[in-house]
Amino acid sequence: MKVAIIGGTGDQGFGLALRLASAGEKVLLGSRDIKKAENTTNVIHNMLKGEELECIQAMTNEDAASEGDVVILTVPLQAQKITLNSIKDHLNGKILVDATVPLETCLGGSSTRYVDLWEGSAAERSAEMLKDKETRVVSAFNNISASSLTNIKEEIKCDCLISGDDVESKEIVMALAEKIPGVRAIDCGPLENARIVEKITPLLINLNIRNKIRLAGIRITGL
Amino acid sequence: MKVAIIGGTGDQGFGLALRLASAGEKVLLGSRDIKKAENTTNVIHNMLKGEELECIQAMTNEDAASEGDVVILTVPLQAQKITLNSIKDHLNGKILVDATVPLETCLGGSSTRYVDLWEGSAAERSAEMLKDKETRVVSAFNNISASSLTNIKEEIKCDCLISGDDVESKEIVMALAEKIPGVRAIDCGPLENARIVEKITPLLINLNIRNKIRLAGIRITGL
Repeated sequence: MKVAIIGGTGDQGFGLALRLASAGEKVLLGSRDIKKAENTTNVIHNMLKGEELECIQAMTNEDAASEGDVVILTVPLQAQKITLNSIKDHLNGKILVDATVPLETCLGGSSTRYVDLWEGSAAERSAEMLKDKETRVVSAFNNISASSLTNIKEEIKCDCLISGDDVESKEIVMALAEKIPGVRAIDCGPLENARIVEKITPLLINLNIRNKIRLAGIRITGL
Repeated sequence: MKVAIIGGTGDQGFGLALRLASAGEKVLLGSRDIKKAENTTNVIHNMLKGEELECIQAMTNEDAASEGDVVILTVPLQAQKITLNSIKDHLNGKILVDATVPLETCLGGSSTRYVDLWEGSAAERSAEMLKDKETRVVSAFNNISASSLTNIKEEIKCDCLISGDDVESKEIVMALAEKIPGVRAIDCGPLENARIVEKITPLLINLNIRNKIRLAGIRITGL
């Protein structure tokens, strides 16, 4: 299985590429700019020196989406629509993992506030854009910070809350998430529940800022 | 310090009264109906038999609000406004702890969905109603389920996320929350952040239903 990371040179995309490559996944690191993608894959190769890498390959976003089996979208909200438009013809029959968080930063505001979206959540916004494709949209990785993904020597102390309407694609994404050490994937039901999960991220950012820490996360208890 | 629990015969109010009485607090258990309040305090006395109870007293909501130093509001959203109106003349200079969760059940809908409120959150709705009083509103106890509060033999595996605009009153409520075994209180910043915290509850209810459990909670990690 090839995992394409769209926006792979951003903080979240870089962190996910690093962790998934380290876990032995075939990663296609996409960027608008192939040179940037190459730089980022070089950084990852250096960070993981000595580890057996299955494959991590720099590509344009379009090529990554075209070759990937699972496509992870990790761009800021203001780039979600234009990026998805640029790759959507390659998403037929595939799983799109939406990791977008509707932070108010997209409007020049605060990362501790969310913005309300017409569709209810960023993941549902992606689903709405892809409704004519046979793409199964899964919301995941929203709450796991780029800082903890990049902090490669330590296990991640955060659950991955996963929402989606298709059971099989959720299972694939849950198995993928759990390849990252410390991550526990939790099925949170239909895609509409991304409305709640996405909003937890600005709270975690708030707690990071208030407590001068960088790795705030959440665990569900009682399961 | 006397802790008044408004709506103390409901599930959440009962659970909080039980835990706080067990922790040695002076609890004034309020209800619209004094007979119901008396029944509930009898149940608590029986459940805590053998424990040293400082005091747990059945009262009308009005009397409890009048005598309490900290007043905890634990009614369903549809009763928030009418209940607050009935006690607001007793809240001058006090701390009101709002534990209301805006579940869609208030509209005959699902407990796994939230409703959006004009004020942003139930806690801000209380604050708006009390803006002419010198009442400090703190949002707390939203995510700790009635089931885990009532499950008296076990520690609670859930953090208490606390939001409020007044630092001193937050500290008082945080200290109160941490008297309940297992609870860790976390300062989540200003009252507006209740917009996020309140929305976590329908997700926890969803996880309870999906997994056929009763005690789903959350812990913040990385602190």
